[in-house]
Amino acid sequence: MNKVRIGSVGLGRLGLQHAVNIASRIQNAELAALCDVDRAKLDETADKLGVRRRFTAFEDLIACGDIDAVVLVSPSGLHTRQISAALAAGKHVFSEKPLGVTVAECREAEKAVEARPELVFMLGFMRRFDESYKYAHDKVVAGEIGKPLLFRSYSQDPEKFIQGAIAYAGHSGGQFLDMAVHDIDLARWFTGSEPATVYAIGGCYAHPEFAQYKDGDNVSCLMKFKNDCMVFLFAGRTAPHGYNVETEIIGTRGILRIAGVPQKNMVEILDGGGVRRECSENFLERFDTAYVNEVQEFVNCVIEGRKPEVTVYDGTRVSEIAYTCKSAFEQGVLVTF
Amino acid sequence: MNKVRIGSVGLGRLGLQHAVNIASRIQNAELAALCDVDRAKLDETADKLGVRRRFTAFEDLIACGDIDAVVLVSPSGLHTRQISAALAAGKHVFSEKPLGVTVAECREAEKAVEARPELVFMLGFMRRFDESYKYAHDKVVAGEIGKPLLFRSYSQDPEKFIQGAIAYAGHSGGQFLDMAVHDIDLARWFTGSEPATVYAIGGCYAHPEFAQYKDGDNVSCLMKFKNDCMVFLFAGRTAPHGYNVETEIIGTRGILRIAGVPQKNMVEILDGGGVRRECSENFLERFDTAYVNEVQEFVNCVIEGRKPEVTVYDGTRVSEIAYTCKSAFEQGVLVTF
Amino acid sequence: MNKVRIGSVGLGRLGLQHAVNIASRIQNAELAALCDVDRAKLDETADKLGVRRRFTAFEDLIACGDIDAVVLVSPSGLHTRQISAALAAGKHVFSEKPLGVTVAECREAEKAVEARPELVFMLGFMRRFDESYKYAHDKVVAGEIGKPLLFRSYSQDPEKFIQGAIAYAGHSGGQFLDMAVHDIDLARWFTGSEPATVYAIGGCYAHPEFAQYKDGDNVSCLMKFKNDCMVFLFAGRTAPHGYNVETEIIGTRGILRIAGVPQKNMVEILDGGGVRRECSENFLERFDTAYVNEVQEFVNCVIEGRKPEVTVYDGTRVSEIAYTCKSAFEQGVLVTF
Amino acid sequence: MNKVRIGSVGLGRLGLQHAVNIASRIQNAELAALCDVDRAKLDETADKLGVRRRFTAFEDLIACGDIDAVVLVSPSGLHTRQISAALAAGKHVFSEKPLGVTVAECREAEKAVEARPELVFMLGFMRRFDESYKYAHDKVVAGEIGKPLLFRSYSQDPEKFIQGAIAYAGHSGGQFLDMAVHDIDLARWFTGSEPATVYAIGGCYAHPEFAQYKDGDNVSCLMKFKNDCMVFLFAGRTAPHGYNVETEIIGTRGILRIAGVPQKNMVEILDGGGVRRECSENFLERFDTAYVNEVQEFVNCVIEGRKPEVTVYDGTRVSEIAYTCKSAFEQGVLVTF
Repeated sequence: MNKVRIGSVGLGRLGLQHAVNIASRIQNAELAALCDVDRAKLDETADKLGVRRRFTAFEDLIACGDIDAVVLVSPSGLHTRQISAALAAGKHVFSEKPLGVTVAECREAEKAVEARPELVFMLGFMRRFDESYKYAHDKVVAGEIGKPLLFRSYSQDPEKFIQGAIAYAGHSGGQFLDMAVHDIDLARWFTGSEPATVYAIGGCYAHPEFAQYKDGDNVSCLMKFKNDCMVFLFAGRTAPHGYNVETEIIGTRGILRIAGVPQKNMVEILDGGGVRRECSENFLERFDTAYVNEVQEFVNCVIEGRKPEVTVYDGTRVSEIAYTCKSAFEQGVLVTF
Repeated sequence: MNKVRIGSVGLGRLGLQHAVNIASRIQNAELAALCDVDRAKLDETADKLGVRRRFTAFEDLIACGDIDAVVLVSPSGLHTRQISAALAAGKHVFSEKPLGVTVAECREAEKAVEARPELVFMLGFMRRFDESYKYAHDKVVAGEIGKPLLFRSYSQDPEKFIQGAIAYAGHSGGQFLDMAVHDIDLARWFTGSEPATVYAIGGCYAHPEFAQYKDGDNVSCLMKFKNDCMVFLFAGRTAPHGYNVETEIIGTRGILRIAGVPQKNMVEILDGGGVRRECSENFLERFDTAYVNEVQEFVNCVIEGRKPEVTVYDGTRVSEIAYTCKSAFEQGVLVTF
Repeated sequence: MNKVRIGSVGLGRLGLQHAVNIASRIQNAELAALCDVDRAKLDETADKLGVRRRFTAFEDLIACGDIDAVVLVSPSGLHTRQISAALAAGKHVFSEKPLGVTVAECREAEKAVEARPELVFMLGFMRRFDESYKYAHDKVVAGEIGKPLLFRSYSQDPEKFIQGAIAYAGHSGGQFLDMAVHDIDLARWFTGSEPATVYAIGGCYAHPEFAQYKDGDNVSCLMKFKNDCMVFLFAGRTAPHGYNVETEIIGTRGILRIAGVPQKNMVEILDGGGVRRECSENFLERFDTAYVNEVQEFVNCVIEGRKPEVTVYDGTRVSEIAYTCKSAFEQGVLVTF
Repeated sequence: MNKVRIGSVGLGRLGLQHAVNIASRIQNAELAALCDVDRAKLDETADKLGVRRRFTAFEDLIACGDIDAVVLVSPSGLHTRQISAALAAGKHVFSEKPLGVTVAECREAEKAVEARPELVFMLGFMRRFDESYKYAHDKVVAGEIGKPLLFRSYSQDPEKFIQGAIAYAGHSGGQFLDMAVHDIDLARWFTGSEPATVYAIGGCYAHPEFAQYKDGDNVSCLMKFKNDCMVFLFAGRTAPHGYNVETEIIGTRGILRIAGVPQKNMVEILDGGGVRRECSENFLERFDTAYVNEVQEFVNCVIEGRKPEVTVYDGTRVSEIAYTCKSAFEQGVLVTF
């Protein structure tokens, strides 16, 4: 295969970005089809990107013989069944997280993947494809910081997006599933280990609306991993300064911080506020290149007949952990995995 | 009183620094006497600082009519009894932390303080006197960051001092009592609240010697405070980069970081390592001015007949919390205060 | 035109990068042909990038009817004649700087461009296409910093590449032409003005080899621009810390710094050297995206029938200024433009 | 001499600070007398600091047998005659810069100093006593950055003090004499060399009021030093971000930046402005400790019978250089020293 013909599903903010990326920034890929339930948005996007094949029904998309792969950026609740259907239809599948909205769904996705070992399945843990995260991970793997003993990771969404978050709160699965999954993935990736215990706390510090979903606007958890590494995660929705994802890995011989001081770009502004650097607006800006890199890796895997580093089991595992964190948070007890 | 005549007790590293500070950097104070069991060191220091009155026995020091106050920088195990004796002898007392090595001792110290309400008693939580911590605290109190929701504080000692730490491990009380007490004090000071629960973990990642004392070389804990603030503390003895004390307070409207990127001074070095800033060597360097400021405040209180903001009860409370953290760490369970 | 078929000329480090970019990272472009005098390198690269048309003679390339445009990354001494020949052959031309190695050559290039007004000609001042420079420029244009009063720009090459620089010193035209041209372009772009006077100094601080070419290993100049803005440029070849391009624009109401603290990525390393950030290795790493963006703009201009912001006259002007700086440096006098 | 009895002259902002410092922060010194023409301010300050001897006439102060030394913080125009008179009266003299308002005056001061070789004379180049500057200077002297090739130094006053600067413009001597003298002193101190040529430019970018004094609100100069080091100085009065003094020394093997990113303290603020650090308000805040250290050194010299590193000839030399810069600025020509 010289070129992977991709049908992209879902045209929300990230879906649109993926579509644009596939159309113009991914090597050896062709945006062969688009799928969205919103006909107007579908046509508008397809026109702009010059895509002829357009589907409002997912089933029609995967029935199309002119596509080799699908990229799923649909609502979370549809992921598992779309993954299964697409694989069954012989399509390679790239799916945004989560793998499923319950662990049971994740297991179902595992079976669908196992049933088609000749196809590529990949889950969108884009942070692994960010240049800075990759650079840090290489150093950890090379042993440059010795043995990791504390892993700390923050995911903070700007307060200015809070209304959207509140509106979506009933469907997000809560902070641990919606935001901390990426940090959980990183924790496993950087430590090479699994959680043994978790204590999770938090609350509604600014927005009581989350309480009805047994969720908070800011939450955190402390986990002990099986290799003894301490893992502290924090996820918040009220960041005053912008979108902020930062990670620190403290090892016995060195410490790495990725975006420890968040920054939009390399511009420093000296004005009435002192000396300042602006932050990224949102995940699309911060992980712009990572979103390209991850789909490029998917395409490369399809072309080269390789399997991606991230497996379907990672997807299940991260979901299990996030659900356990959520449960620990809701019950206010120490939970052992 | 125009000038407070101080007898300084203990000439270890910090004791020596306090003696020098009193002799030369504190207004309205006189280093009137020195006390240490090591005669040679006592004479050497007293000669250098021009101090005539020299005592190897604490009892003789407090019997001396020519001193108004004592500054205790003696071994932790002696604090409580020396506090009590000095107060009983009518001396104002400044004591380095901890108030006592058990909570029972702390209660005893409370009684001694209560018995002499006309005297000034102050405990050395020097971080509150660091310019940057004070500046941040003022902002929090002024409401500039809204409601604090996450308080994170690190205390890291350089790996190069590890042999001393190992040698002292049997007497230190462990990481939470020896190092995290300052972070616990800050957590209460910044949040204005008290812990409700704690989960504590850690281990011997580089130095198994601490295990025999049920301690680790790096530990952390996550606490839920009564006002719902999340508190994450980390204390480590293997810092590769130098002495590092940093604190972050995340509020609903702003975030403050004190020494979030540790630095020795304002010099940036561009060389083969890239662009770097060196770190402080140790607590004496990092908190040089804070150590002066705290004793100055003690002296001012004596002269003005005021009581310091930090009370003996803060000393007890911090010890109680540290012991509870230690207990949570040793048992591996979630502990409710 | 839907797709611009490009013939890329020159397969040195930057030429190779441009070829790879055109082949895989530029929208609506096709790497249709490659040209280099080194047959082996040509075939190796063409094989890797899947390019069928290969030329060792530039004349053959431009005679080829299947290409629409050329990207010139050939030795500086060939630029003018290749620009002229390609335009004469009806090809759109993107040329790396400089426009020519003498001002007379630049004038010749101007005439060639003027003779074919229907074709797109663009010069590779890539810094204008760096996200951070663009962001800063937008702010300046929007008046956010008031009136620029001091423009400072540094170009520093790592000491580790010094042998290559020495070997090339006889052909580079010297520091002002080889390195400072980019800073000169930025100065004109950010201030919207032209130099009125220049004083230039420097020397061979570490490498006397440059003296025979009346050049230095580190040079600087102070210019007064016609709008009164002060412009200070520094170009050096002995940077101990890596590749460093930084710019500061001080305005009456705000100050902007681009890469004021150079950084390779968002990773901060805490180790024996303190807290450090590594620097970019070289211009290819630092301006990776800018090199893509500039050729993308060229391609967009061709497709949309637009002319790029940078004109051939900018190329001449920058060369004139660089030559004047060089002359001021060689004579040690103040030169008026 | 065990204690130096100091008479402090002038109670402007800096004079007041020196008085407070001598009264409370300098070892082995006593604030024995105060002198100011403003009787009310004199009494108020003397009362607050507990100083009995008060003089409105400088002549009376130096006639007083109970003082050993004077600290001159009087208007610049009085420096030379007060230095001469105080030395003639047998007093050690610490004088704030400048030594005199003309080079002729400086020569006169030299003679006065030479006439009393047994007395200590010291000029207040406080930056040399700042911890960060000292740390950097030690590294340069130790050869850690190789041979310095570019020295860059900025002195920026906040725009918010501009009215005061305008009011004082007729007496300040202009930017080079009023502000850049400290940078000139640093340049000589760090490079160990003297200027050979200077080109100076600038203008009234925001405040035309300075033009009548042939001065600018922002000026800069490029000097070639005799050891070939390039020296670029910038002095401005319209800093939007606060008080900013920063210095960079680029050497053949390393680069040092002092306050390259200005900062008030170690607090980082994350809010709507992004991630920011506030700047110092003014020179008193930025150089608080340096002002103490310099007078401490003066006192130590008196007690130990030593001479300070900074000599009266340094004062003359810096003034000569500043005048030459001013002249170069006014004439718009290249000036050779």
